[in-house]
Amino acid sequence: MMARAIQLAWRGRFSTHPNPRVGCVICQGDAVVGEGWHERAGEPHAEVHALRAAGERARGATAYVTLEPCSHYGRTPPCADALVSAGVSRVVVAMIDPNPSVAGAGLHRLREAGIEVVEGVLAAEAEILNPGYLYRMRRGRPFFRVKVAASLDGRTAMASGESQWITGPAARRDVQRLRAMSDAILTGVGTILADDPSLTVRPDEMGDLHDAVPPGPQPQRIILDTQLRTPPTARVLGNGPVVIFCGETMASSDAAHELTARGARIQPLPLMAGRLALPAVARAIAEAGINEVLVEAGPTLAGAAVSANLVDEFWLYQAPVFLGSDGRPTVTLPLSRMAERKFWKVRERRQFGDDLRLILTPDAADA
Amino acid sequence: MMARAIQLAWRGRFSTHPNPRVGCVICQGDAVVGEGWHERAGEPHAEVHALRAAGERARGATAYVTLEPCSHYGRTPPCADALVSAGVSRVVVAMIDPNPSVAGAGLHRLREAGIEVVEGVLAAEAEILNPGYLYRMRRGRPFFRVKVAASLDGRTAMASGESQWITGPAARRDVQRLRAMSDAILTGVGTILADDPSLTVRPDEMGDLHDAVPPGPQPQRIILDTQLRTPPTARVLGNGPVVIFCGETMASSDAAHELTARGARIQPLPLMAGRLALPAVARAIAEAGINEVLVEAGPTLAGAAVSANLVDEFWLYQAPVFLGSDGRPTVTLPLSRMAERKFWKVRERRQFGDDLRLILTPDAADA
Repeated sequence: MMARAIQLAWRGRFSTHPNPRVGCVICQGDAVVGEGWHERAGEPHAEVHALRAAGERARGATAYVTLEPCSHYGRTPPCADALVSAGVSRVVVAMIDPNPSVAGAGLHRLREAGIEVVEGVLAAEAEILNPGYLYRMRRGRPFFRVKVAASLDGRTAMASGESQWITGPAARRDVQRLRAMSDAILTGVGTILADDPSLTVRPDEMGDLHDAVPPGPQPQRIILDTQLRTPPTARVLGNGPVVIFCGETMASSDAAHELTARGARIQPLPLMAGRLALPAVARAIAEAGINEVLVEAGPTLAGAAVSANLVDEFWLYQAPVFLGSDGRPTVTLPLSRMAERKFWKVRERRQFGDDLRLILTPDAADA
Repeated sequence: MMARAIQLAWRGRFSTHPNPRVGCVICQGDAVVGEGWHERAGEPHAEVHALRAAGERARGATAYVTLEPCSHYGRTPPCADALVSAGVSRVVVAMIDPNPSVAGAGLHRLREAGIEVVEGVLAAEAEILNPGYLYRMRRGRPFFRVKVAASLDGRTAMASGESQWITGPAARRDVQRLRAMSDAILTGVGTILADDPSLTVRPDEMGDLHDAVPPGPQPQRIILDTQLRTPPTARVLGNGPVVIFCGETMASSDAAHELTARGARIQPLPLMAGRLALPAVARAIAEAGINEVLVEAGPTLAGAAVSANLVDEFWLYQAPVFLGSDGRPTVTLPLSRMAERKFWKVRERRQFGDDLRLILTPDAADA
């Protein structure tokens, strides 16, 4: 039943942020009497959908939920109360919600009401549903995915910057799904100046969504731009929320006013050695309620994220071509000795057309 | 039966060169009465082994052979004659032997003797047995495999040259098998000076050979060394045959005499723009009876082979690490526009420990 609840939770993969993905199954014995999953922030939680489906059959039933039911009034009333009033007799949860407004209070409320509570069922599988939400709650930073499309000889563009298209249509469709999974897309001003990308999710290019809820509003686009060189005409502006991090001295510059007029939010930060420091950026992003960040940037920013140990997943799309030894690197990462090399675990290899997608996670050997 | 004969032929994968890999099955109806495969040059051919095994039961039998039986006296008498005198009534061959000393004459001899001959059965599978032999006979050049061990960011060494070990033990064992499959290993003097490798096959490091005949003598080591800078103390000397290609003016230099005294054969060639030209080297290697060449060299020579369209298979071992953007490239290949990029077909992906082996072949799109 919990596995089914986790399956249901995944339907919200493109749509629940900044809320966690949650699924719920309500049973009477072996019979499922209600199912639900969270679709979008501001809309009912998984438990409420499932209780509605179950109706009177919720009385005396067991509810399986992938995350501890909330105990606080947010944009919706607390789910723990809803389970109590529906007369559920037993609640099985995969994991505690680390959100400080919940953090065990939801289960406490249930137990107080005389409901039997079981916790920790398929906890590892439930954790994977919400890597960003859990990072933000536990570590105060979002979960970072870096996406790079490279050739088999490790090049992401010609020396001139020419790079369209290294990978084929299937890989590019997958990148659209990856963007839709993300709360925010992080890039550097260099990419904005060089390629003028819009960095939007184009739902018609996502391919088959299967059972997923279609993506909601555009993910936030975040630009690291110390000197505010982003042109007010940049395509990234005017297609949903844009936040531009810059140095403190730029906060009230003309550039800041122009970009604000184009709808961007300017967020100044103290500089370190003249540059924005990624850990500080990460904290600021998490404070804004961002769970999962996709880094789509040039080799410099991607390399800085690797160096700062801020890459939680590296999505490498490899095209079966050589771009040659003058091309731009996979990431800019100045290492001089083998002992400094960066180890990865290959979590998944999957083919998209002629291209291969590798999902890499940092290897513990790399300490 | 032909599939079985091809299977038998593969047993000679490490041992028959410069002869082709050949297998033979002799049957009476559905019953196999004799099997054979060629083991080593100078020893009996596959047909002779199979006929010996069949004995009197060869009379009236059908022989399946992966390559046209030879019709000429080489180091052994002609197999076509052996099949005739054994009284075989039908011979099925996968393909004609393109060797100009055979080239249909073997089948002609069989037909003259009243034997029914069928050709072309599993021809494509039989071709794959002997890519080098067939290239040498048909095109006057050997089959070139380039082997490179690289990181996921496409680097083969640190800037300093430090590179041991990028890949793990399983991949290195596979390289030993790859060396043993090769008639010759080609490298550049740069690699000799930098790494002083022996480039030998170490049978105890090959892992399980399954049913293969153990490798025979060391493959020939071939060094491209325009100025004869190979030190007489180099480890590559004194472990089996070594051929050094150099510029014509070096033919009677002191260096040439010293290297000859260490057992190397010095082969001068006319230079093109001060360098050895790979197509001329390829012709000279084929004339020496070499079928399959493994290029184990630095990025310069490997890149030159790619540029000269002399790479028939690129064996890329990818380790799940980043060596960083200062590292040496996969191959030195100066391209400046996407239109010049080199396309590959991925013929096989296979895991060796943590590393991935890709076998790439040139893509026709790359014309």
